[in-house]
Amino acid sequence: MSRLEVFGIEGIGEVVRGADLAVLVAEAAQSNGTPLADGDALVVTQKVVSKAEGAMARVDPEDPLGHKPLVEENSVRILRRRGDLIISETKHGFVCANAGIDLSNVGRGEAALLPDDPDRSARRLRDALSGRFGVEVGVIVSDTFGRPWRRGVTDVAIGCSGIRPIIDLRGTRDAYGRELQVTEVALVDEVAAAAELVMGKSTGIPAAVVRGLDPAWFTGPGERSGVVADVVRSAAEDLFR
Amino acid sequence: MSRLEVFGIEGIGEVVRGADLAVLVAEAAQSNGTPLADGDALVVTQKVVSKAEGAMARVDPEDPLGHKPLVEENSVRILRRRGDLIISETKHGFVCANAGIDLSNVGRGEAALLPDDPDRSARRLRDALSGRFGVEVGVIVSDTFGRPWRRGVTDVAIGCSGIRPIIDLRGTRDAYGRELQVTEVALVDEVAAAAELVMGKSTGIPAAVVRGLDPAWFTGPGERSGVVADVVRSAAEDLFR
Repeated sequence: MSRLEVFGIEGIGEVVRGADLAVLVAEAAQSNGTPLADGDALVVTQKVVSKAEGAMARVDPEDPLGHKPLVEENSVRILRRRGDLIISETKHGFVCANAGIDLSNVGRGEAALLPDDPDRSARRLRDALSGRFGVEVGVIVSDTFGRPWRRGVTDVAIGCSGIRPIIDLRGTRDAYGRELQVTEVALVDEVAAAAELVMGKSTGIPAAVVRGLDPAWFTGPGERSGVVADVVRSAAEDLFR
Repeated sequence: MSRLEVFGIEGIGEVVRGADLAVLVAEAAQSNGTPLADGDALVVTQKVVSKAEGAMARVDPEDPLGHKPLVEENSVRILRRRGDLIISETKHGFVCANAGIDLSNVGRGEAALLPDDPDRSARRLRDALSGRFGVEVGVIVSDTFGRPWRRGVTDVAIGCSGIRPIIDLRGTRDAYGRELQVTEVALVDEVAAAAELVMGKSTGIPAAVVRGLDPAWFTGPGERSGVVADVVRSAAEDLFR
């Protein structure tokens, strides 16, 4: 029977520009008594990736709307505005509030931007964990997005490496032998959502492990995977852009 | 440390109209050696709930578009059409493809409709498990929806009972003492997504348990919770309808 464990990695501590996330994560997991293992999906939040990469900007700490020019700068297209809220498309193709710019869990006067290339961020972390700690994991960079039609936010993947973003069930059959209608499952988004359940928003746990996923859901050596290429829907096939 | 287990409930077997889901689920979980326990979140797919409730319709098995009139019937508003695909709003307020009507994992010539009131379905299942098996769980009825802007489907909650649909973090502070911007987490959707990872689309596992969630995320006695009331965004506050 398929059985997953989902647990947060505690004790990573404050992440500063230039920090080595692979070391921070691997050592914290080790200290927790739950070292990373082959076949784990490791989920790290955008926030610590952006901090480590220095994808930060200064904002006026006295101005609650001081980050708005940054939002415009980091948007390639504005989809909706209401009051202070801007829903826009980022250069990566993500559609989200405020271009993914985030003022929580950062220092006063700072704003965290999205990583320049979150798939590359995931790949580097994965490669570092493989090369230096000898552990083969899938890495997902997660962020917290709202969505139309439903209240509340959920965590989704903005970058990944080593794990298939989408599980393609085309050609597989249901329990009645009928070919499945629903064919593409957004695996990395479901894994990111599961991880959020142990990370919380205020607890300072920026990484989590989902252990026990089907080994077929990970990529083989040399096989590329990415959220931007595989999950972002092109404007042409999107009915809501 | 917060730690979750997620596992499917195998051996539920075929669900027919009038089936007693509480008995089927509780006994299968018992047979698997993982009986339901207080504080579990039990996720059941819309499909088996609809089957048990008889929320099914006949379609012409020879006509691949035979379910389209049903889609129109079960929509209160059409948002988009492209080719055979209809994105519409159901009477519950869900915006999804084909009004949630599903032809996979049902018998030939049949279509599964959404349950009439999925929150009530969840409440009945929860009450039956509590009353007859003495176990206090949160129940989520899940379904598989696409979303704009991102490829792939994920499982979301269409009904719940005993578990808070949305965790409201308003007033809580981040690790820096700053009040959180992101305040409402769609708990039941993240739990539904986590459960999907062990259910799959073709494996015939229609129920799963997420064990280890924060007890504060469950409702107290007499406290109502529901997806339709708490998660569905009203047209007035929705920027994309």
